[in-house]
Amino acid sequence: MSDRQGVAILGSTGSIGTTALKVLARHRDRFRVAALTAFSNADLLKEQAAAFKPTFVGLVEQNGQWTAEIGHRTSDIGHRTSDIGDRTVIGRDCLIEAATRPDVDIVLNAVVGAAGLDATLAALEAGKRVALANKETLVMAGHLVRGAIERGGGEIVPVDSEHSAILQCIAGRSNDEVRRVVLTASGGPFRDWTRERLERATVEEALRHPTWRMGKKITVDSATLANKALEVIEAHYLFDLDFTRIDIVVHPQSVVHSFVEFVDGSVLAQMGVPSMELPVLYALTHPRRISDTASVTFDPVALSPLTFERVRHDDFPALLLGIEAGRAGGAAPAVFNAANEQAVEIFLRGKMTFGEIPRAIAAALDTLDDLPAHSRDALQAADAAARAFVREKFGC
Amino acid sequence: MSDRQGVAILGSTGSIGTTALKVLARHRDRFRVAALTAFSNADLLKEQAAAFKPTFVGLVEQNGQWTAEIGHRTSDIGHRTSDIGDRTVIGRDCLIEAATRPDVDIVLNAVVGAAGLDATLAALEAGKRVALANKETLVMAGHLVRGAIERGGGEIVPVDSEHSAILQCIAGRSNDEVRRVVLTASGGPFRDWTRERLERATVEEALRHPTWRMGKKITVDSATLANKALEVIEAHYLFDLDFTRIDIVVHPQSVVHSFVEFVDGSVLAQMGVPSMELPVLYALTHPRRISDTASVTFDPVALSPLTFERVRHDDFPALLLGIEAGRAGGAAPAVFNAANEQAVEIFLRGKMTFGEIPRAIAAALDTLDDLPAHSRDALQAADAAARAFVREKFGC
Repeated sequence: MSDRQGVAILGSTGSIGTTALKVLARHRDRFRVAALTAFSNADLLKEQAAAFKPTFVGLVEQNGQWTAEIGHRTSDIGHRTSDIGDRTVIGRDCLIEAATRPDVDIVLNAVVGAAGLDATLAALEAGKRVALANKETLVMAGHLVRGAIERGGGEIVPVDSEHSAILQCIAGRSNDEVRRVVLTASGGPFRDWTRERLERATVEEALRHPTWRMGKKITVDSATLANKALEVIEAHYLFDLDFTRIDIVVHPQSVVHSFVEFVDGSVLAQMGVPSMELPVLYALTHPRRISDTASVTFDPVALSPLTFERVRHDDFPALLLGIEAGRAGGAAPAVFNAANEQAVEIFLRGKMTFGEIPRAIAAALDTLDDLPAHSRDALQAADAAARAFVREKFGC
Repeated sequence: MSDRQGVAILGSTGSIGTTALKVLARHRDRFRVAALTAFSNADLLKEQAAAFKPTFVGLVEQNGQWTAEIGHRTSDIGHRTSDIGDRTVIGRDCLIEAATRPDVDIVLNAVVGAAGLDATLAALEAGKRVALANKETLVMAGHLVRGAIERGGGEIVPVDSEHSAILQCIAGRSNDEVRRVVLTASGGPFRDWTRERLERATVEEALRHPTWRMGKKITVDSATLANKALEVIEAHYLFDLDFTRIDIVVHPQSVVHSFVEFVDGSVLAQMGVPSMELPVLYALTHPRRISDTASVTFDPVALSPLTFERVRHDDFPALLLGIEAGRAGGAAPAVFNAANEQAVEIFLRGKMTFGEIPRAIAAALDTLDDLPAHSRDALQAADAAARAFVREKFGC
């Protein structure tokens, strides 16, 4: 047995997944890739499996060619059924299996959207560390996640750059030493656009993020600031902070990844050029750090000036909608999240204007304001109801 | 007996000392002022003693009126000899006594210049925490300080805003996780002056610091950047960092108090409005923090933009002179420090131009390049030799 830690990457062909593999390729002495799963990009998944030789490979979406090539779903764990892993599973169950395998110590959950929740819960119940890039997990079901941690002894370490920054600044200190956190927001591509222009922003414009290279859904969320609302709710659960202790400031350069203000008035900030490699690596090594010579040396002169602006809440209403949903609790955060996901999907298909996204979210929250939230199933139902509502009222 | 910690303030009537008393007045539930010493400001010292009721009061400089009023030096500890303390000592010995008294847990050493060294060593030998605002202690005799810590079990916590920032960013992590530190320098009042104009800067101009309110000597040191050299040497000893791992960047707003870059490329910064209250409080409470509601809420928008510039080494040669002295080791840092102190004193008396300060330091280092440094006495001799050299060659 190796004493390297086993890492499962859920969503390995996406933006965070490929970044993680780049990082892991530099640190093979400490980590081995134990499992990889992708949604539908079978070709890239095969390449990754060939390069990293995980014992488990999973593909969520049915794929005729793959099934023919490697044989359909097998159940013989440990029996090599193809050249891309000892075990290959096709279908949604692959996420849970990858997240709970005994040779997995850390689950990097980079699944996009609500689909990531079950895998997070399963991993935590199995006592794993979850390196969480799927913020919907905490947004939808923060209280269920807490229960899973208590039962299974797992832990969540955030991969979002903002939450990684906060974790690094708090660095094991007691929560009662924190006065508040200030999440930075790049402001997205429309930071200085007028409300009129915003209203009709195109998909192409929304995907042109000024500082971060990310997946499409999250890039649109950065443009509406819905992303920042998800992060506020996430911070609330991750750091056990009341919503009054979470502020947001616009910081167009994305160099300061967030601030923590302590009870004595001192402020720590975590900084760096915008890259997800560090948050991914830190989520693996926390609370320690390991040398990564590929990381760029910080040059504050080259990054100067750093500027900060107030959020234009009136023009980016999705942010306060999400924070209000977080404060309301119950199923509201799940409704916010699902309505937003559905609206963004319709927007990306060119069937909704940019300005309609927050209106769709607001309408869903207004209508579905009293759904039960006591269980995974109830939340799933709230999620489905919000999606259906947005499709019906706004899809075309 | 109270379980509040006893604090001795050496240099209580100076800039750091009065700031410390302001902070301590807000935290009487945790700290009591056990001892106060001043150099010569007997009136203010008396006021402070009346307000804080320390058990010990000391005045370094002979003072006829005081001596008459309170009786000369007494030796009855615990016997009230005046209304300003159970015990009052006049003369230089008061520093050591204040630093080593049994009812003192923390010694805030805010003595200006080389006079602070003996008190630091004595406090460390006695197992006290030294909240160190006297950077000359480490600059002159870093290796002796290390020995005193090993023998007595004391510890040093820096009060300089830059070193406090670094300590807060490192926050108990292992030194081998630190790639380098970057000290920020305001650049002083002459940051953008031409070399020609710098050469003839007046005392009044040198004392007009843009961001920090400090004592005269340290304000001039900020203008020459000699102060930053002292801080580099101090950081070398405090954090056990090679000189190649200590960089400097000019940051005119003095909001970022320093950066720490870790081995994984992550950077933490400690920030805040320029005020010594936080570093003083943190030095008392480290590694914990206590609530200080008087501290201003951080507003990055109000402080925006934050800018960073390279150091103009050619125009501010004192900085590299000091760093070179630090690298050379032995008596060189003591010579640098003493030559600088003497030159600044002559400058403040209007008898030396601003441009001559670094030339005086350079000449002293060139001439006195091989003095012994093995003991306190040897360093004292090096200090005296450097002062005498500068007085002879440059004083008039």
